[in-house]
Parts: sequence; C-alpha cells; structure tokens
Amino acid sequence: MADEKTTVRFGVLGCAQISIKLCKAILRAPNTTLQAIGSRSLEKATAFVAQNGLPEAVRVYGSYEAVLEDDQVDAVYIPLPTALHVTWAVRAAERGKHILLEKPVAMNTAELDRILEACEGNGVQFMDGTMWVHHPRTAKMKEALSDEQRFGQLKWIHTCLTYNPGPEFLKHSIRAKPDLDGLGALGDTGWYCIRAILWAMNYQLPKSVLAFPGAILNEEGVIISCGSSLHWEDGRSATFHCSFLSYVTFDVTALGTKGSLRLHDFTLPFEENLGYGTFYESSELDFGKIEPGRWCPKPNEHVVETEAPQEVLMVKEFADLVGKVKFFGEKPEKEWSVVSRKTQIVLDAVKESIQKNYQHIEIKL
Amino acid sequence: MADEKTTVRFGVLGCAQISIKLCKAILRAPNTTLQAIGSRSLEKATAFVAQNGLPEAVRVYGSYEAVLEDDQVDAVYIPLPTALHVTWAVRAAERGKHILLEKPVAMNTAELDRILEACEGNGVQFMDGTMWVHHPRTAKMKEALSDEQRFGQLKWIHTCLTYNPGPEFLKHSIRAKPDLDGLGALGDTGWYCIRAILWAMNYQLPKSVLAFPGAILNEEGVIISCGSSLHWEDGRSATFHCSFLSYVTFDVTALGTKGSLRLHDFTLPFEENLGYGTFYESSELDFGKIEPGRWCPKPNEHVVETEAPQEVLMVKEFADLVGKVKFFGEKPEKEWSVVSRKTQIVLDAVKESIQKNYQHIEIKL
Repeated sequence: MADEKTTVRFGVLGCAQISIKLCKAILRAPNTTLQAIGSRSLEKATAFVAQNGLPEAVRVYGSYEAVLEDDQVDAVYIPLPTALHVTWAVRAAERGKHILLEKPVAMNTAELDRILEACEGNGVQFMDGTMWVHHPRTAKMKEALSDEQRFGQLKWIHTCLTYNPGPEFLKHSIRAKPDLDGLGALGDTGWYCIRAILWAMNYQLPKSVLAFPGAILNEEGVIISCGSSLHWEDGRSATFHCSFLSYVTFDVTALGTKGSLRLHDFTLPFEENLGYGTFYESSELDFGKIEPGRWCPKPNEHVVETEAPQEVLMVKEFADLVGKVKFFGEKPEKEWSVVSRKTQIVLDAVKESIQKNYQHIEIKL
Repeated sequence: MADEKTTVRFGVLGCAQISIKLCKAILRAPNTTLQAIGSRSLEKATAFVAQNGLPEAVRVYGSYEAVLEDDQVDAVYIPLPTALHVTWAVRAAERGKHILLEKPVAMNTAELDRILEACEGNGVQFMDGTMWVHHPRTAKMKEALSDEQRFGQLKWIHTCLTYNPGPEFLKHSIRAKPDLDGLGALGDTGWYCIRAILWAMNYQLPKSVLAFPGAILNEEGVIISCGSSLHWEDGRSATFHCSFLSYVTFDVTALGTKGSLRLHDFTLPFEENLGYGTFYESSELDFGKIEPGRWCPKPNEHVVETEAPQEVLMVKEFADLVGKVKFFGEKPEKEWSVVSRKTQIVLDAVKESIQKNYQHIEIKL
C-alpha cells in the first residue's frame, strides 16, 4: 500500500485508450494513488472506471474542470488531443496541479512555452509522457553509447517509427485531424524518433534540420509520413523516418567510430510483459574473439531486466519529483521541461522545413 | 575441370587486394579459367601469383596492355582505381574483351557511357563487380519483398554501409584520392547503398534526390561521409548513409505496408564462409501466432544456403553470358549495363546535390 504521507494523488483528464495504461500504472506505482477521472460526460467516466476494473473509490467527474477543482488531486495526467494541451495544461498549472503531459506536448514551442511558464509560475512539476526513457534498458544503452573503448565517438544515428493503422484511421482518427492531434505522424511517431536522437546526442540541439522531400499529407493537410536529416556543428548527423503507412517498426541504429548499437523496439520492448528488454551492441574490440566462419563479430545481446513496466517507472519518477515539491518544499526539477522543449523545437523545425518546401531550417539556440 | 569448349578465359588487370578474391573465384567457377594477370611491373605480377598460390600456368605480364593483347584472353576483370576505368575498359572492349568491371564503374555517367558504347560497338558483355546481387539470398529477399500478402507495398527503404579504416587511410588510400577512387565513400560504400535501394525498387529510378547536408570531405575534397534521400513519383522514398568514419555496418531496412525486411550484412553475409546467408522478415500476418508475453511477432529468420561464395556465382553468371556470345553467337545481355548505369546516375545526382550545396536534383529519365 502507498504511504499516505508520501503519496501523490492523480487525476486523469479524459478516457483515451492510453488512459487505461496510465491508470493501471498509477495504481501500481508505490507512491501514487488514482484519485479522480474526468471526461466530457459523467457516463463516459463512470463506464471507463467500471469497464477497466478501476477501484470504486476513484472519483468520476463529468468535466475536466471538475478534476482540476478537486483539492485532493495533486497531479494530473493529460492525454487529451495535442491541440487541447495548452488550454488544459495551463489551467491545471494555475490550479497548482503537477502535470504529466502526453506527447507530443504541444502544437508548437510557443504553446509549450505557455505551459512551461504556467508550471514555473505556479511551482508545479512538469514531465512529458515519453515512457521508454524511463526503462532501465535506456540507461544501459546510454552506458554503451558512452563507452569510449567499445563504441568510440557517436557519428551518426538513425531512428524510425512507423505503423500502419489503415485508411479509415487516416481519414477519421483524431491523430490525423488538424484541430486535434494536428501534428499527425510527426507528433505521434516522429516525436519518439527525435527524442531518441536527442537522447543519443546528450540533448545537444542540432544546428539545422532539412526535412526529406516527399512528405505525405492527408486531405486535411496533416502529415502522415515524413522524415528529416539533422546536423550538428561538429559533423555528427542523424536521420529519422516516421509514418502511418508502413508496418510497425521501432528502430534505432547508432554508429560510433568503434562500435554500433541497435534495437528494433525502442519505444516498447518486445518482451516488456516478460519483465525485460534487449538491445544489441557491436564493437571492433570483438574482432579478436570472432566465431569460426564469420568475418564480423556477432552483435552482443544485452538483456536488461525491469522491476516494473516502463509506464509505472515513469509515473513513479514523476511522483518522486512531485513528492519533493509537495512534501519537502523543493523546487520542481527542470530537466524534463528542458528535454521536452528541445524535442518540440526540433519537431517544429522539421514541420517548418516541410511547410517551406524543404528548406534548411537553422535551429536557434 | 572446366570444359574447354565452354570455358571463358580470364585476364586480370592489376594486383589489387580484391584481385585475390576474384582470381580464386575464377579458378573455382566451373566455366572459367585464369589465363593471365597483368601489373604495371612484371615483378609485382609474378609475386602476386606466387604469394597467392595461383597456378603456375597463369601468364604474367608487366603491363595491362599485354593482357589485352593476349588472344587467349576472352574476358578481363578490371579492379583498377575508378578514374582509370574509362581508359582501360574502353581499350579492353576495343580488343574484343568482355568486361567484368569493379564498382564504382566510372567517375560519372558520361564516362560509363563511353565504356558501354565501346562494349556495344564491339559486341562484348559488360557486368559490374557488385557481388551481393548474385547471392541466392538476394533472390529470396526479392521474393519476400514481392509477397503482396506478407509484405504489401514497399513504402520506404533505408540502407547504410560504413566502415572505419582510420585516419591514415583517409589521407593516403587510393580510395580517398581525387585522381584515383575519386568518388570516395560515395563510390566505395554508397554505390552499394544506392544499388540496394534500386534493387528493392525494381530498378525504377527516383524522380529526385536531395543529399543530406553536412557531407564530410577530406582535405583533397573527396567525400568520406555522406548520405541522401531519394524520392519516387508515387510517394515511395528511401535514404542511405555511407561513410569511412563509423564502425562496419551493412544495413538494409525495407518497410512495406504489411511487413518489413531487414539484414545487417547485405553486401557480404556474416556466415558466407559457412555456406549460407540470413535475412529477417516480419509481417502483420504473424500477429495471429504471437508468442506469449510479446506484443509484436519476432521476425522470421530466413536462412539461404549457397553452393558457392557470391563472387564465384558472379563470375559464373558473367561467364555464362560471355559464353552465349562466344560460343553461340548471341548478343550480349544488356540488363547488367542498365542497372550499372542507373546506379551511376543516382550516384552522380547525389554528388551533384552535395556540390550544389544540397540542392534538389531531378533525375532525368
């Protein structure tokens, strides 16, 4: 059971599909409770609690506003469509609620800045809902990328996140509607690609981006397939491809001077339900112990166990930070705002490059 | 033993490292013999034969010209630096020698056209030295890509070929000298990337290319790292990255609407010396038989056995075509000229995009 003295009480705004996963994570994390769920209709919220087997004690509300007005809600998880983030995140911050905000965090950096200013002005913690960075595998991969002897210097990284939800989705899903998740595939899948690249680059922003020509937009002008190259001052570079048109693919390939790192499930380990994740690492150092008949060493498979699914670890980490503010009077941790903002800056630049007919876009620091 | 009546007699121009592999392939293929080797010095050619355990019957010459003048040489393998190809390939064709020409085939399409015109004018067979397309794995992969049920339509392909030969190579190797292998990494490794993309696209040329900004050149202006996106009229696209700066990486990732295909050793199977090659294929059809605990099906590993290394199969296929001309009076097969030329056209366009500060380059059909 959670200790009431250090427990963060969550409210959830909206009954999106992803809310089910987060509600279960909130129930499972050791330092959180699920206090309330709000939907645009009370019936929907009530049905959501019943259908997903959530505790009867969870309060249900027929508006998002009501969740924000609940004094026993410390923090909110906001999985609403991207275009609604700025409104509800700012309101939540103004009510003193700490904010776990689903990605993509905003339609653009200007909107995100309004959210972050509201968080700062009201002393609330901010974190975006990018789960994979909280998996212990991610820390192990960072160790591998930082291994000067085995990996050398990072030169190039390629990431790819695609899935193919079909033609009905492309016409009717909120993820392909300009006034809802208006960033389309760039927001839904490109966000992860960009974040992974920045993560590998120790969150150093590129100096410029140039989107790949031939981005594909739906009839309403929402991106359903695109990609970009990204360029750093020191010669490092990256590319990504994101799309709603191809079979499910979650790839990272990072190349260093002496080694490489690969995985095909970076946002969600294939074996997540089995309690572990894997990645593959190769190094020139292994040429000394090469198997007979092979001309190149086999990649090393690294298996990283996890005590809980990545969304539980994310909720726990967020609640730890909220707890420091709530129970110990510390200031909110800024790191997560910074990485969200950098991700959004690059995403905006890629979108701008597409809109300007594939011009180079300089990233202003 | 080779049947003399259907045997193609090879001459080799130059004692490059790659010549060793080809000489052994010529000795092993059922329809070829190694007739002669020429070097700029007789001593070097003699030492090459001795050091590599080649038969004493192989004729050694102290010039390339002498190989071309040998009436008992039917075909030549030309592994000379790229800048010398046009001179020696044209001379060889004019002497009626069939030509197996190492890649990249020429410094540009104009030079290649001089070679191909000489071949056509003299009725000789042309093939470039891209070995991996001759491995039986390649045909099996093409079957997988063509499987409408499992793979769907190809949407996107990414290829990557890098290795890191070190700073001395970048200064002194012929592969980084403007007057020798003047196409640098784009010719040495990008050639394979482009060829793999075109192969996957059934050799349909893209409508345009746009090189990634930030290509890296050495002090003499030779490309040592670059990449590009490629775009087709129907929305398909591709990217590649090639470099002399990163750990050895030979990747193909092809994404279809329903499935994907991957391999990390496309130009040379890791298990080539064990007599097989593998590739990995995934499909949405496999979601029905997913393993417990996984949310996404494991890729299917396809193992393709080969009766001979890919360079032997290449030599055999080339000699089969030469044999049709030599023994049966048929016309040379044009297919191999066409795919070489398309590869060179795209390579030229990428180079032009880099030279023109990363402009879009339209491919003229």
